[in-house]
Amino acid sequence: MIELDFKKSGGLIPAIAQDYATGEILMLAYMNQEAFEATLSTGNATYYSRSRQALWVKGETSGNVQQVREIRIDCDNDTVLLKVDQIGGAACHTGHRSCFYKLIENGSIRVIGNPLFDPEEVYNR
Amino acid sequence: MIELDFKKSGGLIPAIAQDYATGEILMLAYMNQEAFEATLSTGNATYYSRSRQALWVKGETSGNVQQVREIRIDCDNDTVLLKVDQIGGAACHTGHRSCFYKLIENGSIRVIGNPLFDPEEVYNR
Repeated sequence: MIELDFKKSGGLIPAIAQDYATGEILMLAYMNQEAFEATLSTGNATYYSRSRQALWVKGETSGNVQQVREIRIDCDNDTVLLKVDQIGGAACHTGHRSCFYKLIENGSIRVIGNPLFDPEEVYNR
Repeated sequence: MIELDFKKSGGLIPAIAQDYATGEILMLAYMNQEAFEATLSTGNATYYSRSRQALWVKGETSGNVQQVREIRIDCDNDTVLLKVDQIGGAACHTGHRSCFYKLIENGSIRVIGNPLFDPEEVYNR
């Protein structure tokens, strides 16, 4: 049994999804105990959606699931790192490969790269 | 002015530190507005310590500061990604290069790698 420290932050801990092959950071989301266990048992990244207040199998709508290749936890057991294969190529709901597509440069934001899909087509079918 | 969304999680947002050269994820800590601004203005990763409830210039005790090479934020402005040069080689207070040195394997934890320094020597001088 792996004991994570969910208490420090009110039941949810951050989980980083990193591309297994390239090391690119794809996104950060949150997990409760149930999401962590679902991730372990299914092999697909499963988070807890703070906005919907429900378990969230990443890619359940878009098809862009994350197949987990490796799971690490940090020194004090309050952060999860998933190394994943990102199916469909894009992790972000905006269609960008990574959610971290905004670079801070000289005090303002510059968008890096282009979306790989059109969110309207994927989510509003 | 860059507006981050600190409200969603009570004033603190997660910040991931990633090795600029290798892509290795070094640690995750938290930032408030002041920590974010200090990071921008000084170029050294500055977090907010939840345990000490104070601004925390990473490396102020150990000397293992993080020189920020690139800052990104995510799609909904509630997570920061710092790409850093990790001075001294180790980001973790345990002496490990990365805080994510615990691999989950067959339902248990296996420690990966060895500490680069002895925490007793660094923190209890």
